[in-house]
Amino acid sequence: MITDDVVIGEGTKVFHPPLVNLYGCKIGANCKIGTFVEIQKNAIVGNNCKIQSHSFICEGVIIEDGVFVGHGVKFINDKFPESAKEGKLQTEEDWIVTSTLIKKGASLGTNSTILCGLTIGENSIVGAGSVVTKSVPPRAIVAGNPAKLIRFRECSASDRSA
Amino acid sequence: MITDDVVIGEGTKVFHPPLVNLYGCKIGANCKIGTFVEIQKNAIVGNNCKIQSHSFICEGVIIEDGVFVGHGVKFINDKFPESAKEGKLQTEEDWIVTSTLIKKGASLGTNSTILCGLTIGENSIVGAGSVVTKSVPPRAIVAGNPAKLIRFRECSASDRSA
Amino acid sequence: MITDDVVIGEGTKVFHPPLVNLYGCKIGANCKIGTFVEIQKNAIVGNNCKIQSHSFICEGVIIEDGVFVGHGVKFINDKFPESAKEGKLQTEEDWIVTSTLIKKGASLGTNSTILCGLTIGENSIVGAGSVVTKSVPPRAIVAGNPAKLIRFRECSASDRSA
Repeated sequence: MITDDVVIGEGTKVFHPPLVNLYGCKIGANCKIGTFVEIQKNAIVGNNCKIQSHSFICEGVIIEDGVFVGHGVKFINDKFPESAKEGKLQTEEDWIVTSTLIKKGASLGTNSTILCGLTIGENSIVGAGSVVTKSVPPRAIVAGNPAKLIRFRECSASDRSA
Repeated sequence: MITDDVVIGEGTKVFHPPLVNLYGCKIGANCKIGTFVEIQKNAIVGNNCKIQSHSFICEGVIIEDGVFVGHGVKFINDKFPESAKEGKLQTEEDWIVTSTLIKKGASLGTNSTILCGLTIGENSIVGAGSVVTKSVPPRAIVAGNPAKLIRFRECSASDRSA
Repeated sequence: MITDDVVIGEGTKVFHPPLVNLYGCKIGANCKIGTFVEIQKNAIVGNNCKIQSHSFICEGVIIEDGVFVGHGVKFINDKFPESAKEGKLQTEEDWIVTSTLIKKGASLGTNSTILCGLTIGENSIVGAGSVVTKSVPPRAIVAGNPAKLIRFRECSASDRSA
């Protein structure tokens, strides 16, 4: 479902609106949003992005233009998530959202996990199944758990970014 | 959907009942159950738990109070899953459920995978993206694939558990 | 939802048709298809397969008989996925599908990620949480990120495959 407060740009296609959970977020123009995707309030997605099935974009995540978010990619906004505190369920007041920024043209591989407080650099590539614990430089290709630098892409930013 | 045989405690919130798959399970009080979650028959979830989006809790899993189950966390109850045996699809009679116990106050990070026959200790933390193949001691912080001990938390159980 | 062009064999059970996304694919007989599963156009699934919840099977994937696809397993068909090219969203014309073949009786563990252009051998086992970057020989057991050979199974193919 898509709540009324979601802002969606022109030309963006949500393949199956009943099978997503979008609320309070802002999505740019000409994006594609797959099935079983959740995007939380205050998350921002730029233009020309592909948000693939089974991905989760939480509050505090800012995604610039032309970013590829692979199937099953999950973001995080809480370094030490806990369910309860002194015997009571935690509420929104109990936690501080830690932001993450995904720069233009980045590609986040299938099933990767992106920890919080990071910047994923312009035109970088995160390999499938990676667990990203540190910021990623522009044009870097990283992979593994934890993700490590493999090499840099040989491309100019203008070729790649949206 | 939530089948009629699901037992749900007072104050527990299922955010989008049509977008979950809960059947034959028991869930305690004051929990939050995210979207695209499946909880199978005979699984037990305690009080004050957060079960985040895209997680899967199978038969044989017992989750105590105050546990955080991150987005995309998946449990397992079969050490050697197979689809077919002698040319026929396996049925329920062909497999033995291996249990897993998640103790009070544990936190299972986003996209972690929890193998079966394990105990995840009280107030322990499983890092995001971990693949947990061994039991985790109380207050341990583990991470990686396979998950390894990073350090112990410096907290008293009474501070943390629900 | 299941589009009209999906071909499904006799005896195959889709547990919750409104909570899957199957389109343009072909699924054999006597399979079980879990919840929150997406199977894309031109993907092929054999007979006697279990396709567990939260899994994603993309175009270019061919799954033979008797294969177990664990919860959250994701396939890939594009070695260098990108969202945009020269400032415009990529379209289907911009990419080449790279195929992957899963041979009879293979078992793909929960949350594993299968890269493309690979053959996963007959009766092989991919451990939970693995990231498979190379082809897997028949009867091999592989695990880790990237997945490495652990040992070979001591079984005859006839015992195991469907």
